[in-house]
Formats: sequence, structure tokens, C-alpha cells
Amino acid sequence: MSQRIVFPTIIAPSAFPGVDAPQSLLVSGTVAYDDIITPKASGKRLLGGSASYAALAAAFFTDSRLAGIVGGDFAEKDRKRLRSHGVDLDGLHTEAAGKTFFWSGKYHENYNHRDTLETRLGVNAEPRPPLPEAWRETQFVLLANDAPTLQLAVLGQLHEPRFVLADTMNLWIETARKDLLRVAAHANLFVLNESEAELLSGESNLFFSGRKLLKETGARSVLVKKGEHGALLFHREGLFALPAYPVTDLRDPTGAGDSFAGALVGVLAALGRSDFTALKLAMLYATAVASLTVESFSCDRLESAGVTEIESRAAALREMTRLPG
Amino acid sequence: MSQRIVFPTIIAPSAFPGVDAPQSLLVSGTVAYDDIITPKASGKRLLGGSASYAALAAAFFTDSRLAGIVGGDFAEKDRKRLRSHGVDLDGLHTEAAGKTFFWSGKYHENYNHRDTLETRLGVNAEPRPPLPEAWRETQFVLLANDAPTLQLAVLGQLHEPRFVLADTMNLWIETARKDLLRVAAHANLFVLNESEAELLSGESNLFFSGRKLLKETGARSVLVKKGEHGALLFHREGLFALPAYPVTDLRDPTGAGDSFAGALVGVLAALGRSDFTALKLAMLYATAVASLTVESFSCDRLESAGVTEIESRAAALREMTRLPG
Repeated sequence: MSQRIVFPTIIAPSAFPGVDAPQSLLVSGTVAYDDIITPKASGKRLLGGSASYAALAAAFFTDSRLAGIVGGDFAEKDRKRLRSHGVDLDGLHTEAAGKTFFWSGKYHENYNHRDTLETRLGVNAEPRPPLPEAWRETQFVLLANDAPTLQLAVLGQLHEPRFVLADTMNLWIETARKDLLRVAAHANLFVLNESEAELLSGESNLFFSGRKLLKETGARSVLVKKGEHGALLFHREGLFALPAYPVTDLRDPTGAGDSFAGALVGVLAALGRSDFTALKLAMLYATAVASLTVESFSCDRLESAGVTEIESRAAALREMTRLPG
Repeated sequence: MSQRIVFPTIIAPSAFPGVDAPQSLLVSGTVAYDDIITPKASGKRLLGGSASYAALAAAFFTDSRLAGIVGGDFAEKDRKRLRSHGVDLDGLHTEAAGKTFFWSGKYHENYNHRDTLETRLGVNAEPRPPLPEAWRETQFVLLANDAPTLQLAVLGQLHEPRFVLADTMNLWIETARKDLLRVAAHANLFVLNESEAELLSGESNLFFSGRKLLKETGARSVLVKKGEHGALLFHREGLFALPAYPVTDLRDPTGAGDSFAGALVGVLAALGRSDFTALKLAMLYATAVASLTVESFSCDRLESAGVTEIESRAAALREMTRLPG
């Protein structure tokens, strides 16, 4: 198992007088193989999917449990790769007769847009077995990007989780809005990117859009991701704005949002807290993690960088956002 | 004269052990009348121009001297308006036989783009008289957006200024790049917006673009404005990122950048400092000022809001960017 970030050493006592007992994190979502073409390179059968990125990112902070489904073609080396970071795969169901979810995409010149070339649902179209009994008590939960009906099915199996982050994508806003809003209503934190927030709220002003989603979805808080411009947290206690880490070696944006979400709930679970202050700190680490994710295909760079580089980027980001006085 | 922000009372002693003697600020640029159409309203013969916005914004912080040119049609009420904030108009030359620079523009639905409907240079095409002799010693200087040749002419009359901020716009990058680069080479702070930075650097990555401009223009520091996403300061001592104040009542973006620049140098002059720490604090106030500018035509909202609201927004922005620990 890889190294893990130990929070009491890096959190100023004044901000966090006590850290509650660290909690496990349940990550539910897709596990996939991706073929990706970027302006700089291309990769085939890359380990991808929202839950892979998220569970691996979360494992730098706390015990991470991955619930999902793969086909008989899912490679043993990828299982080992996830396990080597401490990701618990007891809830990763293998449908031996089927194929693992496959996605293929191509990024445009500036990486701001991508075209989906092919999607093969494979076992992702199959019914999923229930969560392992012991996992239903998990207190911190990440519903990584997936069909809202599947997110709702996971929610229905949980016994009063303390904190649920729900992530999504434009596809579900366009094709499953009603179910997505049911998911959001259960979320302690509902996460979207800027264009998704505009699509769902119908508002082009970023701040108005975030406040409207906070008011109308029922989510306890709303986070809007803005890529190179950072992220905004709309919380009942106020607004928090965090710039992005300055990435100059962008290689593949795939999974940035998934690893951001994974790290974010990972930090909360590690702290055993989910208040506004803890959320701000979690965003700092999530931003550092996402900045590493985009510097390679899959999680290669994040895995090789590890705890030292995550902490170093979090510290650098903290410094570059600190006002005098 | 309107109220002025007094810094020693709001700057924590730890960050600013001493404030040097406050300095005057020289603002050189255009004074104009604007006809503006926005999705919500339209206004005619609004007091505009880069120097009007900038000098008025700066006057909330220090003595503000406006160097520019107007025609015989420039209204006495507009002179009074500027003077009522303490703006010194001794360097505002009136060419009685000519007309004040006129600009007319229309904003698109989301305010991100605008079309210029008409530009009448008027007296702006005339040679400008020299600066008042006493003004040549001014230590803090804002070369507000104007033709680079005119900015260079002002620079040539100054006796070793301590700090020069040079602002510009896409027009000069496209039509007067060489002269603009000469201006930038003399600047302590060169200010552009995101698309201008991309245009001038030829780099689409924001961080790479800023670093390249810092390295290649000779400017001592470079600031990239990102509208609702805030601003980035590329400084030899490091990067500083500040989010925007959350404006939800956008009325007219005209002059946002000019008042941002005016407030920024205004704060520096008031502090008598121009180091990295002072620049960060100046960006905070500049952001607060710009957020007020865009909530009305001309400087109406900024003027009615005044010191109390500027301080309140600066405090709110500080709070919403503060990380725990």
C-alpha cells in the first residue's frame, strides 16, 4: 500500500483543534478502459472510469472502497494496480461473460473540448449486485459520475451516510435530468463543471447559477469546477473560491474531475469532518491531486508523484492564494 | 472631495510594519463620451475613457492626477464630477475647436463580447501638450489604455518614476505591437486580459502565457485579468491568484479594467510601496472597485457606493478566499 497523507501534522491546530476518527470512503461509479487521443499523444486501453480515478485519488487520504462492475477482460494487473494503493475491491463485481465499459475520445487543440469517438457500455448495461453488507454503513460516500438511476440504487442501500458527494456530467443533465435532481437532493455536495451548471440552472452568470442550484436542488452545498480557473464552493455558510494549481504540462484532462472528487471526499473522510472549513481544506488537496492527474494518461503521474508531490502542490497553492494582512 | 480609504487602519501590522509616505498618482489615457447598449439598458454620452475610470477609481486611495485631452464639447458637469472626487485636472487639456473622443458599443447577451458600433477620435487624433512641469516628478504612474505611441510620449517626460503600470487592449496588440512592446519593457506591471495575453504570447495555456510574457517583454511583472474568474499576477517572486468578487448584478462591463488598474496603482501610491506583498493587497482593492464599476453605466455605482462598500467588498473577498490553517 502506498503512503498516505497524515493530516494532524499539516493542519494548523487553530483551524482544526481536533480531528475526528478517520472514516472509510465508499466510491461508486464506472470502471473503464479508455482509448484517448490528445494533440500530443495517444493511449490505448488506459485504466479509466470515474470510480477508478476517484478511488485511487482517495486512497492517498483514507481507506477507499470501490463499488462497480467490470467484464471478464478486466486485467489482473489493473486490479493489482488499484490494490497496491490500498483500494478495497470487494465491491467490484466481475461479470465474466461481459466486457468492461469502453470509451474512446479525442481532445481538440486547446484541450477545452473533446469528441467522443466510441462508447461500448458492455457490463455497464447489466444490473449490479448489491453492495457488500459491511459497506452499507460507510459514512462518507462518493457517487462518482454514472447514470443517476445507478447512483440512486447505491443511495438506497446506504444506512444514513454522514456525507454524500454526487458528481455528474452533461449527458445526464440532458438525458436524465429528473433522476439527477433526485440524486442532487440527497447530496451534501453536488459537483458540476461550469458549463454543466449553466446547462442545469439555465443561468449564464456563474455566481447566480451556483446560488440558484444551491437553493433549488436541495443539495446541502454545490461546487462548480472551472478547470484552469479553479473552483467555487457555494455553501450555506458562504462562498469559497479557490484558484487552480498552475499546470503548464497538460497531457490528458480525462479523470481530472473524478480524481478531484475522490480526493475531496477522501480528505473529509480522513478528517472525519464535513463542515465548511473542512470542505475548504479538502478542495485544496483535491485541486493538487487533479493537477497531477492531467499531467499524464490515466493516473500514471499521480501515482508516481505520490504524497510528497501532493503535499508540495497543496502548499504551493496555499501560498499563491494567500493575501497579506 | 469624497472620502478616502486610510490604509494603516485596515492593514494588519504584521504584513505592513510601516507604510511609506503616500504618493500622488499620475493617470494618463483617454477621456471619452460613450454610447453603450447592453442587453438590459442603453446609455448616451456617458463619461468614459480609460483615464476617467482609472483616475476616479484611484482617487479613493490617493491624490489622482489626470493627463489627457478633451474637446470644447466636454461638459462642465463632468469636470466637476471628477474634481468632486479630488481628481486634479491640471493636465487635462481642452482643445476648444475639437470634439471629445467618442465610442459607441453594444454588448452581446452574456456580456462576454461586444461590438464597436462607432469610434470618432476627435481631439484624440491631435498632438497633446506636455505634462505640467510639476507632474513629471510623479512616482507612481498609470499608463491607462491608449495608443502605445502616446504612452511612450508620456513615459519620455517622466523623471525616473518608481512604478509604472501599463494597460492596453487587443487593438494595440494587433496594430502597434512593436511600440506596445517598448511600453511593456518600461513597465513595472504590464496588464492584459486573458485573450490579449494569448494574442500577444501566442500561447493558449494561461500560466505558460503569463510566464512567457514576464520573461520576454521585460516588464517587471505581468497581470492577467480573467473577468469573472479573477486575476493572476506573474511576479519574479512568484505567482499570485485572486478570484473575482461574485457580481450577480452585471450592468455594463465598460471601464472594469480601467478602474481595476486605477485602484491598483492608487493603493500602491497610497502605501508608497510596490513590492509583491503590496501588489497582492492592491489587487484585492482593485477587484472590489472593478466589481462596483460593472454594476452600472460609467462610474455611477462606484461613486455612490464609495469607501464603505469598497472596504466591505474587499473584506468579503478576503474572507471567501481564505484557506483554513
